Amino acid sequence: MKYGSSFAQFRAGAGNVWQEYVSHRFVTGMGDGTLPRAAFLYYLKQDYVFLIHFSRAWALAVTKADTVDEMRACTATLNALINEELKLHIELCGREGIDEATLFATQEAPQNLVYTRYVLDAGYSGDFLDMLAALAPCVLGYGEIGASLGASATSDIYREWINAYSSSEYQDVCGEFGVLMDNAIHSRLGTTAEHSARMPALQKRFTMATSLEVGFWQMGIEGA
Amino acid sequence: MKYGSSFAQFRAGAGNVWQEYVSHRFVTGMGDGTLPRAAFLYYLKQDYVFLIHFSRAWALAVTKADTVDEMRACTATLNALINEELKLHIELCGREGIDEATLFATQEAPQNLVYTRYVLDAGYSGDFLDMLAALAPCVLGYGEIGASLGASATSDIYREWINAYSSSEYQDVCGEFGVLMDNAIHSRLGTTAEHSARMPALQKRFTMATSLEVGFWQMGIEGA
Amino acid sequence: MKYGSSFAQFRAGAGNVWQEYVSHRFVTGMGDGTLPRAAFLYYLKQDYVFLIHFSRAWALAVTKADTVDEMRACTATLNALINEELKLHIELCGREGIDEATLFATQEAPQNLVYTRYVLDAGYSGDFLDMLAALAPCVLGYGEIGASLGASATSDIYREWINAYSSSEYQDVCGEFGVLMDNAIHSRLGTTAEHSARMPALQKRFTMATSLEVGFWQMGIEGA
Amino acid sequence: MKYGSSFAQFRAGAGNVWQEYVSHRFVTGMGDGTLPRAAFLYYLKQDYVFLIHFSRAWALAVTKADTVDEMRACTATLNALINEELKLHIELCGREGIDEATLFATQEAPQNLVYTRYVLDAGYSGDFLDMLAALAPCVLGYGEIGASLGASATSDIYREWINAYSSSEYQDVCGEFGVLMDNAIHSRLGTTAEHSARMPALQKRFTMATSLEVGFWQMGIEGA
Repeated sequence: MKYGSSFAQFRAGAGNVWQEYVSHRFVTGMGDGTLPRAAFLYYLKQDYVFLIHFSRAWALAVTKADTVDEMRACTATLNALINEELKLHIELCGREGIDEATLFATQEAPQNLVYTRYVLDAGYSGDFLDMLAALAPCVLGYGEIGASLGASATSDIYREWINAYSSSEYQDVCGEFGVLMDNAIHSRLGTTAEHSARMPALQKRFTMATSLEVGFWQMGIEGA
Repeated sequence: MKYGSSFAQFRAGAGNVWQEYVSHRFVTGMGDGTLPRAAFLYYLKQDYVFLIHFSRAWALAVTKADTVDEMRACTATLNALINEELKLHIELCGREGIDEATLFATQEAPQNLVYTRYVLDAGYSGDFLDMLAALAPCVLGYGEIGASLGASATSDIYREWINAYSSSEYQDVCGEFGVLMDNAIHSRLGTTAEHSARMPALQKRFTMATSLEVGFWQMGIEGA
Repeated sequence: MKYGSSFAQFRAGAGNVWQEYVSHRFVTGMGDGTLPRAAFLYYLKQDYVFLIHFSRAWALAVTKADTVDEMRACTATLNALINEELKLHIELCGREGIDEATLFATQEAPQNLVYTRYVLDAGYSGDFLDMLAALAPCVLGYGEIGASLGASATSDIYREWINAYSSSEYQDVCGEFGVLMDNAIHSRLGTTAEHSARMPALQKRFTMATSLEVGFWQMGIEGA
Repeated sequence: MKYGSSFAQFRAGAGNVWQEYVSHRFVTGMGDGTLPRAAFLYYLKQDYVFLIHFSRAWALAVTKADTVDEMRACTATLNALINEELKLHIELCGREGIDEATLFATQEAPQNLVYTRYVLDAGYSGDFLDMLAALAPCVLGYGEIGASLGASATSDIYREWINAYSSSEYQDVCGEFGVLMDNAIHSRLGTTAEHSARMPALQKRFTMATSLEVGFWQMGIEGA
């Protein structure tokens, strides 16, 4: 299964909420070009601040890893986020006349704040698995959305964003995340992990983070 | 100044947001009895879950204290929250036929989730002062609201809630919190702390938590 | 089994290290009165600082609990530590002319520092179970030592210390801890938890904390 | 002043402890080649595990930073530690027939454990400044030792180690750390930060971490 077997289980367990996330009007609007520019820019500014706190969550994951391999995987993602992914936002916004200092000063919308702080608290209160279950919907959902829009988009207006997440580079990140999560779960909960008494709590983390992604798209549309 | 000098400074620094919080329609509606019962009950169930995570924040404060006195003060509050304040909610809800297991299973509204996780992250990412600045609006705002409604309420419908927060017992808690925060700030930032370069960051914590209180009242009205 | 089945498993898994801890020369010296007074006082001063950071670890446990019952159990222990157990140290030391400010200013010996910071990091980097596995050797080992010396001590020199830990009150604390740990493990890892892939990591926490207890007794003898 | 003005203040404030650290017999023994090989290898294996937990502390620093620049600086160091500095240990040990799996399985000596867990707890319980004050003695002390041995070593036996820390690359890391710490202190405590009421607590962190460095060298000599 794409992005690993744990993701397949969590994705199925999230039910309709997953579809609300990856098929949100904001997403289809990027694909057919009907998304208002103002909504996209509002989203982009919020997402810049989101990525800062999401990077903090990946850094927290490093502190909760059990092996050097896990630490290196999380460090690589942290590095990609803070040094590469932020660049997309800085460049796109720069062309609209918004500089990085302005981006950094963006007042976090509640739908933004709630998501990153929930993920961070999942890590602080739980262990490495709680952390990964809360990080997964963003990383892998963007991979799924990127791959889908990459194949189906009928407009070039948001092509730059779509290319970023449909790129083989980002898809590789998703593949590696899937391996990291599968291995982390199996090494801690055993080969029958999918039936473990811990899975409902991890599913709850995954589903909550997914529903906060729905709220994030909604913020983009309403906030503009 | 009531509840200490740091609170006076933070309260003034929060500007209009503080008034939006303590004079919210939800508050005046408890005073004159116009608040719909459904709104109150919706709020009460959310507040039960809020108090659980707010208690976690007070426990986190214990881990970040510098002295045994600070630890004892935070432990006393944690104890009061988890063993006493929750009882008000359990009793009030119990009379409406809602038992504690149902309360505990309440799905957290985003406006609830965002507040407690913001406060917890303030503590995790910062120090004891960041923690107190983020805890203050809830503790002291309820003190101010309680005292005000205790003197001015024209309806007895929400008398039990009002009595809880206007009680001399709760007002003492607020007084002690003010002393704790004043002492904590002075011991770390010196006698001229009010001009310290750290105060703008602490003010930001206080103001953000206050605005999340506004959102919490709003949730009560809209969620019902 | 006394203090629960998880403890029985961890205790057995720790092998000789457990015996080195509960039968340390410091322990037998309290029983037969051969422990030098200076060693006892050195230990007591270090233990005062130990209890402060051990209390912080119990507060951290509150932030990592899943249920209100778990939170209440940890809060009760935190409360007992910071308000009751410290008193024994303050009183015993007070009679020797050492006041609380002096106790608080005690420079932590490395064998003291290493123990509490290891326990705290077990909690920060792991989840509630990592926390409990690291807390258990101190809580339950003192219970076992207290019960044993209470029945076998041939000297009254250290009777006050022995009475504190052989008391039915402290033995109840140990019994409750055992229940808390058994329930926490079963609710997270299922009814066959003893064979879970997570147990070796928890055992490692327990064994490391036990070996740090051995170092703590040794510090008492060498540091004086 | 080399490595910045805050370091100069902390270094002076640590008094003799700093000299005990940078002029330890282990250090001079690397310079004149009198350090027994067994002591060096024992140290190297412990240092491998040390760097893992020290990397965790740098990751924790990312979660506590206030600006993207601070986050990037800490991420760069984390990256250098987990991907570059560990290589020196893996290569040196590899030539002695010790593979990475063996290194990773090294049982942490108490003098090793106490250091990293103290630094981590400094970060968890405090803020970004507590974190930096606890990280500084290792980063900058190795810079000072490297530069000193690079200029004065009379033996080539430990040349590879000396070159690593006297290299312009590592000296640049130290220079950047000094700038990071100076800026972080000034932005939080103002331009007169050196007289701030917070400095004694930060000095205490720095001095404790320095004394734990002394213990680490001592471990190398005694543990072999």
